[in-house]
Amino acid sequence: MRIKKTLPNSAWGRLGDYLRETQLLASIHNTLYWDQNTIMPYAGSAWRGEQLSFMAKKLHSRQSSKEFEELINAAKQEFITNDLDEDNAKDLNLEKQKNIELLEQDFNRQKRLDPELVVQLASAQAKGYNLWQQAKAKNDFSCFAPALKKLISLRQEQAMQLNEDRSCWETLAQPFEPDLTISRMKELFAPLKKRLPEILEKVRGINKSFEAKWDLQEHSQQLLCDRLLNAWGIDTKNSAIARSPHPFSITLGPNDFRITTRVVSGHPLSCFLATAHEWGHSLYEQGLPSECHKWFAWPSAQATSMGVHESQSLFWENRVARSRSFSEYFWRHFVEAGAPLKSGLDLWKAMNPLSPGPNRVEADEVSYGLHILIRTELEIALLEDGLSVEELPYEWNKRYKDLLGVIPKNDAEGCLQDVHWSEGSFGYFPSYLLGHIISAQLTRSMEQKLGSIDERISLGDVSSLLTWLRENVHHFGRKLNGEQLVKEVTGEDLNAKLFLHYLESKVDELSSLT
Amino acid sequence: MRIKKTLPNSAWGRLGDYLRETQLLASIHNTLYWDQNTIMPYAGSAWRGEQLSFMAKKLHSRQSSKEFEELINAAKQEFITNDLDEDNAKDLNLEKQKNIELLEQDFNRQKRLDPELVVQLASAQAKGYNLWQQAKAKNDFSCFAPALKKLISLRQEQAMQLNEDRSCWETLAQPFEPDLTISRMKELFAPLKKRLPEILEKVRGINKSFEAKWDLQEHSQQLLCDRLLNAWGIDTKNSAIARSPHPFSITLGPNDFRITTRVVSGHPLSCFLATAHEWGHSLYEQGLPSECHKWFAWPSAQATSMGVHESQSLFWENRVARSRSFSEYFWRHFVEAGAPLKSGLDLWKAMNPLSPGPNRVEADEVSYGLHILIRTELEIALLEDGLSVEELPYEWNKRYKDLLGVIPKNDAEGCLQDVHWSEGSFGYFPSYLLGHIISAQLTRSMEQKLGSIDERISLGDVSSLLTWLRENVHHFGRKLNGEQLVKEVTGEDLNAKLFLHYLESKVDELSSLT
Repeated sequence: MRIKKTLPNSAWGRLGDYLRETQLLASIHNTLYWDQNTIMPYAGSAWRGEQLSFMAKKLHSRQSSKEFEELINAAKQEFITNDLDEDNAKDLNLEKQKNIELLEQDFNRQKRLDPELVVQLASAQAKGYNLWQQAKAKNDFSCFAPALKKLISLRQEQAMQLNEDRSCWETLAQPFEPDLTISRMKELFAPLKKRLPEILEKVRGINKSFEAKWDLQEHSQQLLCDRLLNAWGIDTKNSAIARSPHPFSITLGPNDFRITTRVVSGHPLSCFLATAHEWGHSLYEQGLPSECHKWFAWPSAQATSMGVHESQSLFWENRVARSRSFSEYFWRHFVEAGAPLKSGLDLWKAMNPLSPGPNRVEADEVSYGLHILIRTELEIALLEDGLSVEELPYEWNKRYKDLLGVIPKNDAEGCLQDVHWSEGSFGYFPSYLLGHIISAQLTRSMEQKLGSIDERISLGDVSSLLTWLRENVHHFGRKLNGEQLVKEVTGEDLNAKLFLHYLESKVDELSSLT
Repeated sequence: MRIKKTLPNSAWGRLGDYLRETQLLASIHNTLYWDQNTIMPYAGSAWRGEQLSFMAKKLHSRQSSKEFEELINAAKQEFITNDLDEDNAKDLNLEKQKNIELLEQDFNRQKRLDPELVVQLASAQAKGYNLWQQAKAKNDFSCFAPALKKLISLRQEQAMQLNEDRSCWETLAQPFEPDLTISRMKELFAPLKKRLPEILEKVRGINKSFEAKWDLQEHSQQLLCDRLLNAWGIDTKNSAIARSPHPFSITLGPNDFRITTRVVSGHPLSCFLATAHEWGHSLYEQGLPSECHKWFAWPSAQATSMGVHESQSLFWENRVARSRSFSEYFWRHFVEAGAPLKSGLDLWKAMNPLSPGPNRVEADEVSYGLHILIRTELEIALLEDGLSVEELPYEWNKRYKDLLGVIPKNDAEGCLQDVHWSEGSFGYFPSYLLGHIISAQLTRSMEQKLGSIDERISLGDVSSLLTWLRENVHHFGRKLNGEQLVKEVTGEDLNAKLFLHYLESKVDELSSLT
């Protein structure tokens, strides 16, 4: 018995096979990352770092190889010759054309990177993550500072090698938010930078009393999350949940969706809301056009931007789980779990304390944007304006005092609180705020079609919301960037008006309760 | 900034680098396996199968490459020229010599395999495992049968390609038990095949009443396992525990040791004893000469055989956890966990019901060997003597009736009970019984040095047992095979006498209690 393997005849098929193998590697890399963050014992991190570097190197080598370039060119040639005049497959042609465009763009980026830089970056990320964990546990910024410096200098080198017609920070932000510029971002965020502190001033203090004074057992929190996910259509045949220090969502295969959450002592709603948030990410991934594995390895089937990704997680977290109608619908489950609530309103208040604190992940919707503005300004300063790593804790605390009126007790709850920089992710943070803005605009369009979503939520009907998102948002994949998607779906340009309007109404309603 | 990588000057160093990278791949493969068995959702299995096949192909290609062959030859040449006459490093020379020997042996095996067979096997293993899970859940052997046939024919092809001076089954058993032959195995097992049914006849029925009529909450079982592992020196910085359908132990890096266990409803001691067993495996891995990563990637630092591996897990499970002294020492923890026990003796009886059943993993020490003899005979018949897959359920049940006097209720608790064949592992089962034999011989030598281990166990002192095992057994790695190891440590040839003697004494003591 000898076993033969047949090669596909078409150049398109050969390119597909190549992409599939690249995606195998990428998803193996993701599996290592998942394991590292959910169960790997601490002492495994050095070896895991070597594994991740090894995979990053292999991945980069595939994504920048001569072979890949030739496969793209051959597929493009074949497409131009055979497909363009076949009228009966217009959609397929557009899909193919977009894929070629994206593949060429991604390839050109990868090709410019020195493979050794890729390896060094992967290794610096693993080390950085590691030291960040230690530094946070010990509240000792100085033990993380050298790793952060190293990551900054490697990322600066990366931007230089990429040699795009963009600033350093902009270049690094592209994979998260294609086509974003600093000036466009400033324009989008300007109304928020002005209005958010004013709204915050209005609510300052008065809703402090909303914060839950009670806590729930870990086991009960788990049960509530399970109930939520069941109500929101989880299929445990293709999804799994675990715990990690920093909640995240990740896709490990065409039918393998994972999310993590965490239990924070004294914050009985943290685990629940993190679950809602991460599941929102996962629902977007599950709605991408990768059905039947056909497009799974192709760029057009992938998430278009982190802003759009966050718009989905924030929709489920804030517009659904933090809504008054959801609390009315769901509060009895919290009572069963041991929460001392007398009504849905009690739960709604606890979900929305509107009290600015030093922590981004636990922040209310008003102050959230300010957490992002601070981080975005600081990372641009670190990468482009010579802000030194040593100055970071001071600058961080200063801005918190100025914008939010709170001073972190220490660096662990200050500039060490987030994982992103420890992995060298610069340019990611604005996506969270863009997500708020996009979510508000998409929700308005959804309501124009479905009527008030609150009515549906109060009846426990969220499947119609998901269907709308699948049909109007998810299926585009990378065919439209964030701004184009908003324009296509809502007919309006991306802007913060609806988000501010939503916040102001919510604050008015909450303020009237005190 | 350009980053340069320096290559080691010596051929030995270059070979080490190559092995290290191979080990990175192998440990990534193991991480995928761990994830697959502990948390991966079911629908992820098709893609995971592709990932595992991909890794298996890459791994095989590295292990059989021209580059590898040249590195081995260059290192060997360098060793012969430079090292052999340096008297002051005799141990290091022996280590190097053994490594070259093992590398040549392993390379020659890998080289003979058609890469396509390697891929097909990996894919058939993933599919087989998958279908086995379904078949077991539905109690439908016919849905697994085609996958089993495929695995048998691929393994037969593998043995043909390996073209060793051994029978098909022997060839496949080599990676588990180096140098084992069917005739030597029959010679070793003959006294067991004769005596075990006689001992079983003696205890038949009389100890049925020992079986626990009580159960423990999952949470309490978890707590007892944690207590056990703490008492047995677990360091959570380098070890992690999870659940899986079939308990196993796996090493994912030089400082990353994992075990799994499972909770079986109605069997309150199953989880506890599985934990003891798997932790015994892990302790062996932790004692291998891979300190400081130096030898981690080298064959001499690896486990020598599954028989020796099982001798370690069985020592901790049977000689320690199932001993009367351990029950006396530990029973109060079980009472705290909710077990209705009046004394250590009660626990000891529950740990040793001596009642033959259809399940290998839950079997007592007397019938255990018979479970193995049945599987070993059947897999040799499947691979070498033309036993058809369709006949397997009938042959299985027939042997259970003849040797153990029990008939499995259905195939799920019959020939579908074990995972091994679903992954195409033929030749593994005898290692369990060899493990029993080796454990008995090693324990005798340990007692000659330390005195009665029961005295130490009853005082909670197991660290001295572990130290003895580390100093006398673990550190050899692959430098000695199973038989050589026993000879070296005990001065005796491998034989079943001490194991039978141990069983008979234990049965006598237990019988006197009824």
